[in-house]
Amino acid sequence: MKTLLYCSVCSGALSWVKPQGDNISRSVCTHCGEVHYQNPKIIVGCLPVWKDQVLLCRRSIEPRKGFWTLPAGFMENGETLAQGAGRETEEESCALVDVGPLFTVMSLPGHNQVHMYFYAFMRSDCFGVTAESSEVRLFGEQDIPWSDLAFETIRQTLEHYFSDRQQGVLGFHVLDLERNHD
Amino acid sequence: MKTLLYCSVCSGALSWVKPQGDNISRSVCTHCGEVHYQNPKIIVGCLPVWKDQVLLCRRSIEPRKGFWTLPAGFMENGETLAQGAGRETEEESCALVDVGPLFTVMSLPGHNQVHMYFYAFMRSDCFGVTAESSEVRLFGEQDIPWSDLAFETIRQTLEHYFSDRQQGVLGFHVLDLERNHD
Repeated sequence: MKTLLYCSVCSGALSWVKPQGDNISRSVCTHCGEVHYQNPKIIVGCLPVWKDQVLLCRRSIEPRKGFWTLPAGFMENGETLAQGAGRETEEESCALVDVGPLFTVMSLPGHNQVHMYFYAFMRSDCFGVTAESSEVRLFGEQDIPWSDLAFETIRQTLEHYFSDRQQGVLGFHVLDLERNHD
Repeated sequence: MKTLLYCSVCSGALSWVKPQGDNISRSVCTHCGEVHYQNPKIIVGCLPVWKDQVLLCRRSIEPRKGFWTLPAGFMENGETLAQGAGRETEEESCALVDVGPLFTVMSLPGHNQVHMYFYAFMRSDCFGVTAESSEVRLFGEQDIPWSDLAFETIRQTLEHYFSDRQQGVLGFHVLDLERNHD
């Protein structure tokens, strides 16, 4: 969690105290009394599928530069989950997708984040490198770079996808990831 | 979205500009350059069920004071979605529940929020009024105060629950709510 020092309303100094009627300490302004809440953020992304292959992006930025990920990023104000997932997919892979059913919902309490991936149908096999991805590629199940995946959330989402596909059902998976995973 | 005036890192004045490499305007410090991102918040709650009844709380605080809601609130840092849903249920209704499957996920782009309700099994029929709820009651389907519900998210969650129950399946529902709903 980010340390806040000054009040964004009046620039007064902040202290770490329990506001009246609250049971959790917050950053509270010593001058104007404003309470500055900090809450988990949402990461939205897609599992883009073309025929029997899935689209992965090699990260060109930290964290985990050089490792493979599904296209995803912070949900923005003013958009829906599906809009955010589609936007991130286009930004990171140039792929245009029809966002389908929500596939994984993962709580990461150690990172103050919730990650949500949608199953997505690629409209074509057009995609390409972007500012955030040094390489973008379609992978069959046998070619997935399991030891070079960027995050545990990506491994979980891919494993559930291939497992579901083998069983002939596309499920929906709610998971809690431990603090030592990202 | 809250208007930020001063930088929480250095107390410098903020301006509303597009950071380099970004395509959205953000609050950026004119002094130290810190970018202050604002993202959607998560509301988590439960649909607490006891036999064929559901538990509703009458709000004793604004917004929608006096109207009926399911127990819910802002997800906190350091918790999972299910932990947040259980915590809010206990805080608002004194009911202890076993949090079950995720039931509704609703994007509210006009409010910069995502609301998520879990199906929850009440461990007993013990519950009571709290600082946030002036009245807490079990309701059968025919007694639901449909015209006195606090939020559209509550109506959607209850309607889907009773519809699913009639069909003998407990589904999972991802919805986008329009900007004029809350």
